[in-house]
Amino acid sequence: MKHILSAKNPQVKEWKKCLTKKERDKTGTFLVEGFHLVEEALKANAIKHLIISEEIEMPAWDYGDISVTIVTKEIILQLTDTETPQGIVALCEQYRDEQALLTGKSFIALDQVQDPGNLGTIIRTADAAGIDAVIVGDGTVDIYNPKVVRSGQGSHFHLPIIKQNLPEFIEGLKEKGVSVYGTSLENGVNYREVPAAESFCLIVGNEGNGVSKEVLLATDKNLYIPIHGKSESLNVAVAAGILMYHFV
Amino acid sequence: MKHILSAKNPQVKEWKKCLTKKERDKTGTFLVEGFHLVEEALKANAIKHLIISEEIEMPAWDYGDISVTIVTKEIILQLTDTETPQGIVALCEQYRDEQALLTGKSFIALDQVQDPGNLGTIIRTADAAGIDAVIVGDGTVDIYNPKVVRSGQGSHFHLPIIKQNLPEFIEGLKEKGVSVYGTSLENGVNYREVPAAESFCLIVGNEGNGVSKEVLLATDKNLYIPIHGKSESLNVAVAAGILMYHFV
Repeated sequence: MKHILSAKNPQVKEWKKCLTKKERDKTGTFLVEGFHLVEEALKANAIKHLIISEEIEMPAWDYGDISVTIVTKEIILQLTDTETPQGIVALCEQYRDEQALLTGKSFIALDQVQDPGNLGTIIRTADAAGIDAVIVGDGTVDIYNPKVVRSGQGSHFHLPIIKQNLPEFIEGLKEKGVSVYGTSLENGVNYREVPAAESFCLIVGNEGNGVSKEVLLATDKNLYIPIHGKSESLNVAVAAGILMYHFV
Repeated sequence: MKHILSAKNPQVKEWKKCLTKKERDKTGTFLVEGFHLVEEALKANAIKHLIISEEIEMPAWDYGDISVTIVTKEIILQLTDTETPQGIVALCEQYRDEQALLTGKSFIALDQVQDPGNLGTIIRTADAAGIDAVIVGDGTVDIYNPKVVRSGQGSHFHLPIIKQNLPEFIEGLKEKGVSVYGTSLENGVNYREVPAAESFCLIVGNEGNGVSKEVLLATDKNLYIPIHGKSESLNVAVAAGILMYHFV
């Protein structure tokens, strides 16, 4: 077990780089912070390196042969965007399994969802609903942004989250006979009128503008969730949740 | 139309106090920022005073006889917790109508929900679903916290949000024959097995601990949303959305 006490140590600088999208894309890694996320990463066998503050006691988990470095509280603070970290960080491998593109039957696809909390919450809900994969189109916030990972509550380790060009992805699904449902308040079908199905792809869109026209034109049907009160729309993560639980 | 250019002006200090819960409770007012929220407040006839930055153009709305003060950008920054305000703030009256306690048929009640984004999103969803009132139990984040108001997207002006002692409120509903449903992953009934009804009260709970035991014991039934994947639970605002749309 190594000890690093200086924040200027080159290894610390290497880890810190993973807070940028560029480095995450290049290395296929990302950082998670806190007991819950690190435990989920451990269960998923996704940890490449574990970094623990000298101020905390290591939980009695089965670490196998994972390499561990003990660091100062200040170094932990540099490796996370939370102000009050729990003192435990894991450098993890991204779950890049694209097999689900071929074998998956249920998908939720995101078109330019920009709020990290919304993306993370949709990933968490997709996991709960038993969806086979989350598909992330161009213009959506980075999957491994620390806030997305935190809202995901560990689901990043449970189901594939795959970047795709949405119009091309939709074409592929339609050729396989999978029903593709966009969401749109205008010219849509009430979601309750569409029965649950074994294979489907739901598409939700940007917080302000919804699903883009190009994508809406490529779907089989576009659905809406009725608004009974005076609210103009639903939060995208709530809408995605209502639809996913309707279809599964 | 008044102009105030000094952030030390006593009127600015008075407005600023409304960023604290204490002052909001005392005066029955709260501040909203941004075009969308101010327009919703205007439509609801809830504005006591309008405060506009000298840097923006006033939207061409019908202001009636609302008093307006023009201020500097610096003063606007002091009246909001957002870093990039749009330059328009309204001092609003709280919607304190408790009539819905007597006449309402559909309720969502919150037991110690602590994240402002979750509370605001539940208020917004309740509005969309056509729920008659949101009931806020002890230990839940302040209804008029600026982040709650922002996530509420204007629904604070559309439906009553009423503080109540939950066990007492539940007793009252049961006497009137309203079905009261808690939520619990343990010893619960799958929500799909309970049919939609004209009158009901749903209760969702704290992000970490769920609905408290005392409240769960007072309900008619406790429901769960099945988890098909490896996620441990759903976000409380998503769960509330799925249940509200199931029952309406």
